[in-house]
Amino acid sequence: MKRIADLLFEARMLKEIPRSGFHFLGAGRESIAEHVYGTTFIAFVMTQLHPEIDARKLICMCLLHDLAEARVGDLNAVNKAYVRADESRAVADMVQGLAFGTQIQELIAEYNGGRSQEAKLARDADQLALILELKDLDDIGYRPPATWLPHVLDRLQTESGKSLAEAILDTRRDAWWCPAPQVRNSST
Amino acid sequence: MKRIADLLFEARMLKEIPRSGFHFLGAGRESIAEHVYGTTFIAFVMTQLHPEIDARKLICMCLLHDLAEARVGDLNAVNKAYVRADESRAVADMVQGLAFGTQIQELIAEYNGGRSQEAKLARDADQLALILELKDLDDIGYRPPATWLPHVLDRLQTESGKSLAEAILDTRRDAWWCPAPQVRNSST
Amino acid sequence: MKRIADLLFEARMLKEIPRSGFHFLGAGRESIAEHVYGTTFIAFVMTQLHPEIDARKLICMCLLHDLAEARVGDLNAVNKAYVRADESRAVADMVQGLAFGTQIQELIAEYNGGRSQEAKLARDADQLALILELKDLDDIGYRPPATWLPHVLDRLQTESGKSLAEAILDTRRDAWWCPAPQVRNSST
Amino acid sequence: MKRIADLLFEARMLKEIPRSGFHFLGAGRESIAEHVYGTTFIAFVMTQLHPEIDARKLICMCLLHDLAEARVGDLNAVNKAYVRADESRAVADMVQGLAFGTQIQELIAEYNGGRSQEAKLARDADQLALILELKDLDDIGYRPPATWLPHVLDRLQTESGKSLAEAILDTRRDAWWCPAPQVRNSST
Amino acid sequence: MKRIADLLFEARMLKEIPRSGFHFLGAGRESIAEHVYGTTFIAFVMTQLHPEIDARKLICMCLLHDLAEARVGDLNAVNKAYVRADESRAVADMVQGLAFGTQIQELIAEYNGGRSQEAKLARDADQLALILELKDLDDIGYRPPATWLPHVLDRLQTESGKSLAEAILDTRRDAWWCPAPQVRNSST
Amino acid sequence: MKRIADLLFEARMLKEIPRSGFHFLGAGRESIAEHVYGTTFIAFVMTQLHPEIDARKLICMCLLHDLAEARVGDLNAVNKAYVRADESRAVADMVQGLAFGTQIQELIAEYNGGRSQEAKLARDADQLALILELKDLDDIGYRPPATWLPHVLDRLQTESGKSLAEAILDTRRDAWWCPAPQVRNSST
Repeated sequence: MKRIADLLFEARMLKEIPRSGFHFLGAGRESIAEHVYGTTFIAFVMTQLHPEIDARKLICMCLLHDLAEARVGDLNAVNKAYVRADESRAVADMVQGLAFGTQIQELIAEYNGGRSQEAKLARDADQLALILELKDLDDIGYRPPATWLPHVLDRLQTESGKSLAEAILDTRRDAWWCPAPQVRNSST
Repeated sequence: MKRIADLLFEARMLKEIPRSGFHFLGAGRESIAEHVYGTTFIAFVMTQLHPEIDARKLICMCLLHDLAEARVGDLNAVNKAYVRADESRAVADMVQGLAFGTQIQELIAEYNGGRSQEAKLARDADQLALILELKDLDDIGYRPPATWLPHVLDRLQTESGKSLAEAILDTRRDAWWCPAPQVRNSST
Repeated sequence: MKRIADLLFEARMLKEIPRSGFHFLGAGRESIAEHVYGTTFIAFVMTQLHPEIDARKLICMCLLHDLAEARVGDLNAVNKAYVRADESRAVADMVQGLAFGTQIQELIAEYNGGRSQEAKLARDADQLALILELKDLDDIGYRPPATWLPHVLDRLQTESGKSLAEAILDTRRDAWWCPAPQVRNSST
Repeated sequence: MKRIADLLFEARMLKEIPRSGFHFLGAGRESIAEHVYGTTFIAFVMTQLHPEIDARKLICMCLLHDLAEARVGDLNAVNKAYVRADESRAVADMVQGLAFGTQIQELIAEYNGGRSQEAKLARDADQLALILELKDLDDIGYRPPATWLPHVLDRLQTESGKSLAEAILDTRRDAWWCPAPQVRNSST
Repeated sequence: MKRIADLLFEARMLKEIPRSGFHFLGAGRESIAEHVYGTTFIAFVMTQLHPEIDARKLICMCLLHDLAEARVGDLNAVNKAYVRADESRAVADMVQGLAFGTQIQELIAEYNGGRSQEAKLARDADQLALILELKDLDDIGYRPPATWLPHVLDRLQTESGKSLAEAILDTRRDAWWCPAPQVRNSST
Repeated sequence: MKRIADLLFEARMLKEIPRSGFHFLGAGRESIAEHVYGTTFIAFVMTQLHPEIDARKLICMCLLHDLAEARVGDLNAVNKAYVRADESRAVADMVQGLAFGTQIQELIAEYNGGRSQEAKLARDADQLALILELKDLDDIGYRPPATWLPHVLDRLQTESGKSLAEAILDTRRDAWWCPAPQVRNSST
């Protein structure tokens, strides 16, 4: 139980670490924990669109996909050009002495491998969570997202991922709660 | 797809709303999204301790349990003494027109019902996520968590929940990364 | 005196609670306390324009109008579609045992009733405080205020309220301290 | 009306300026607007305790007492040892062209003069608002308020001010919403 | 050594004080410490462009130029119209009892005098640090910087300062890390 | 000049990146830019204590010592156990095309080498900047600094560094502005 409590405090650390990409973007902010929430929620939606896949695996892969960042930090695209992180050793140290440690290691390794259908969808969920942020900031009036979006869209690998991205870009951030036609028109 | 994009922006709103209990506590802060991440992670751990339960259901219940707060707001214990929220109508409006809307409604209803074993564990995960925050703030030196903890512990219903709470209270927030004996001793 | 100290700590809570409408707006932020300050200041201005009304009543109604939110929370327009708050019970609990509790209850009830001339002006002051924020954010470059403003303007009931709103919309946020013509022109 | 809109944007600036004393304290924060709200609320309470005084004047003096800080900035006790501010010129520039400008100037001058009974109470309200913050931070576990409190208490001039300060120091920050005896005892 | 520790805590205070000009701008924020960092870095660059000047003096003048603000506060252009600060007494009190106090006083006095070549460059570095912030916020989509920039540019006195300002205004905030042609074009 | 503007925007990025060690500490926060300011100021003080060393070199080494973090990110002690950063390539890319690029590279390399007397003092200045933060947070009432301080003190290499650390630990964070004996005593 002691090692489980350690794991919970380690996973909690993701609440404290901001996503470093937003420092480069110049607008918005989110903690890694918030990003993981967004990614996992998108994974849940994907399991509804894909009854053929292993739903539990897809969701858990997304929930765990950034866990190593508690030890490694959040490395954005610029950072990754200069830094090499031994993520598997970070995960190994994290799960040491945990009865279900192998489970966690395998889910993260499958995510990083990116070969299974679940891993491909999970990786697209990760990008879609960023696309959602960029669209939100673009609607609010910030300029940098327009420059970033084409690059992030290019990373999508699955048909579901591409369709979801298209739907996000076609939808106003506030359409879900302010659907009256006159409001919609007023922004044209 | 349009309605799915709406759902994603609605779920994203949980990143913007702070948990109002922390305003009363006087220390710490978290968004609802961060709280959902914490709760869902604890649910994942519980699925490892309870191979007999429906893992996917437990995890998804936690992932969705606060979704209505995008429309309803975050109501803490004091608020609830004065406010009555029609959460099921909020959920109904949210999933209107969604092919898998019933799925979401059922998971949230089961969570709120609190009768199934998965729901009991999910509700304990919700409380454990708060206990983890309180222990963290207590270790840092804040006084109010000591007053709150007994009340939150009282809400736990399952044996797993109680054991996990005990382990959290017995563990220093930084033990996972600073395990050297001299460091541990220095805090005694 | 003990109950008065309780009241002061309760009123102080409005400093901790952010106005939830800004989470939906996507730009800006303010605490309820800051909103009450803005509303009360506008009320003071209205008392100068309306020598015929009860100045003390108008100002005090604005100063107290959100006091129940310490217990009830800040409910925005979306929240109110799903939530029913027993504000008068919140106020009753707040003033219990206070010699001048009835005074507070009556002022809040009159504000909520919205029938007296003072109440109508007070309610317009509440909306004007929001209009001032929206105009400020619009000047800075944020897009959502342009969509919101027509809806908020529609809520105004008094001639003074409408004139003040028009003046706010015609005035640059920084005109009071940067009145030089060349500066004004540079923004055209 | 144009000049009134300028005045509203100028008064709004107090939301943006943090109280600089908290930088020295090392804990807590508040905007000047939040401080004015707190001070004005205490003034309202004082009008209930003192039926003999001019309630409208006391409340308005508190509402306006820091208005010059929009132009002058917030000067704390250390700053004041080195800085001389021409507050009356700041107020004169602010009200220039306003029909009711003299009213504002007189209220601020009476507050600064500190001779009338209303001014003495208003100045105590200003200090009590700070005492409330310090007590709140002390309850939470911060150390500096204990060093500051004696100095702030020394500045109080009226009997009401002293009684209110005593009541604040005798009251827990959360007693108003958590009155159960076991909770109270747990903090002993 | 005791007085040196005092000096370090005093210099540290600049981390806590926000630059008040940004409250008027309505976008961005920085602590005085961050501003001093930016100014000193620009001074370092200037020493590379000007081998003829006293490099150490220029860099140290920039490093110390806002030190008095720990006691005096940060006074922006509006504040300065109403406030007179005895900065030299603030510096005198700061360095009292310090063996190298005269050094600090002379560097600050030379900076404020603005007559030596080093002082002129240092004062331009101070303005360039602000120009860099304004350009950054302009790129992100904020509107007020366009109104401010001409006024700040007018304050530059040296040829190097003017050339650097021109280069800053011609350069995108993210060109240093995103130099690919397609990215550059996408913003045209 | 274009490449110099790029360098200024790159150096500016240090304002956006928080020091990640504070996420582990659980109290306080600072940007890398604020840390560089603190380190460089301590270096200035050291040049006064050590007339025999190359003052310009010591100060510039401190000013530049974290510049690579704009590309590499801020790696704390836990991160460094898992991550290998190619800092010299980051610096090489940063200075490419800059006339004075070699200067920057040599200063950073000498700092990282840690062999010259200036480098040893610069590295101690880096640690002293952290010790100052920890002492400040300890005075305020936070618990984690007491656990961290012995480890940071152990990293000091020079006699000056050790004496300064001792002086910092013996000095109250607010002694510089609140020197009255009664205030000092009240904290005993």
